[in-house]
Amino acid sequence: MKLQMAVDMCDTKQLLELVDMMHDLVDIVEVGTPMIILEGQLPVRSLREKYPNLTILSDTKIMDGGSLEARYAFEAGADIVTVLAAADDITIKSVVDEAQKYGKEVMADMINIADVVGCVKRLEKLNVDYICVHTASDVQATGKTPLEDLEKTVATVKKAKVAVAGGINSRIIKPIVELRPNVVIIGSSLACAPDPRQAAITYQKIIKNL
Amino acid sequence: MKLQMAVDMCDTKQLLELVDMMHDLVDIVEVGTPMIILEGQLPVRSLREKYPNLTILSDTKIMDGGSLEARYAFEAGADIVTVLAAADDITIKSVVDEAQKYGKEVMADMINIADVVGCVKRLEKLNVDYICVHTASDVQATGKTPLEDLEKTVATVKKAKVAVAGGINSRIIKPIVELRPNVVIIGSSLACAPDPRQAAITYQKIIKNL
Repeated sequence: MKLQMAVDMCDTKQLLELVDMMHDLVDIVEVGTPMIILEGQLPVRSLREKYPNLTILSDTKIMDGGSLEARYAFEAGADIVTVLAAADDITIKSVVDEAQKYGKEVMADMINIADVVGCVKRLEKLNVDYICVHTASDVQATGKTPLEDLEKTVATVKKAKVAVAGGINSRIIKPIVELRPNVVIIGSSLACAPDPRQAAITYQKIIKNL
Repeated sequence: MKLQMAVDMCDTKQLLELVDMMHDLVDIVEVGTPMIILEGQLPVRSLREKYPNLTILSDTKIMDGGSLEARYAFEAGADIVTVLAAADDITIKSVVDEAQKYGKEVMADMINIADVVGCVKRLEKLNVDYICVHTASDVQATGKTPLEDLEKTVATVKKAKVAVAGGINSRIIKPIVELRPNVVIIGSSLACAPDPRQAAITYQKIIKNL
């Protein structure tokens, strides 16, 4: 099980400072969508230049123009790009095709998808590498967590790796980790922790030892 | 009826060259999603610095983090941001709230939405300024155009302005314009035309005179 640190509310300079502090403790660093909306692939490129071996996910949330947008992220140095499950099959397939050209990977994000079981089956047919169960940050305020959708996903999935995101913190991580997803994505409760290194050590212990 | 030029396959330098050539001929300049994926809000900021009075749309296609992502675009100088209709109501509402704080506008993008009529009703309740009928560029290869969904939208909409996008060119513009949308969005057949100024003149004649 891998720990992915999602970094949303930073600029490139702050991201680099955070990753300088954390790169030996997290398995995947995610350049979050708000960072991309603000700075494009600059944070991905800057991370890649400094850390040739770091696994970097560019949270592009592609909805159209799959080939072009995936290419921008891979050219900047991303190992994994995200495509929205809400996108058309053609778009998802074009992202998968582009990733295969680069020898890279695709994570499909099921954010705001109602029919989780049907969607997992569809995404597997489209050969995405990861299926991400994701409770939107805007929706977390209602008390929703990704746990229920994660249960459905791990019960349905056959070959894709499963990732899970959406307000995961020390209070809700244990039942999530017990479902054995391949990637646990932690955002603000890691990147914005008072002591991010200590938080990463704690989360890695939970993830790797359970 | 307004003409919106969508610019997707450029960097900021090429965008500025294109807009230098076209700014008196188009009503709205759209910084397309691929440009944002590549460069963030830099193209929006650069356009705003050079053209204080140009109407700029930042095609952010927001899916989560509505308040923060909309703010990034408005702070860069955008007049209109886009949110995906596929996003949760809470996200769409947070984008609308943020726009109201800035005195700016929101376009909801119905890309890849199956239930167009239900979606239009929902988006109106959420008080978006524009509802955009949009055939994904990846889907246009199947021969699909936005015409049929535009018919449903104009028959359903009560107060929002209607925009339409998706491979609009000289061959298909007339039946679209006859449905009287408020904004016609033209991408490659304008921005990538052999003579973009002449193409804009031609499209404006069709749009303004019909």
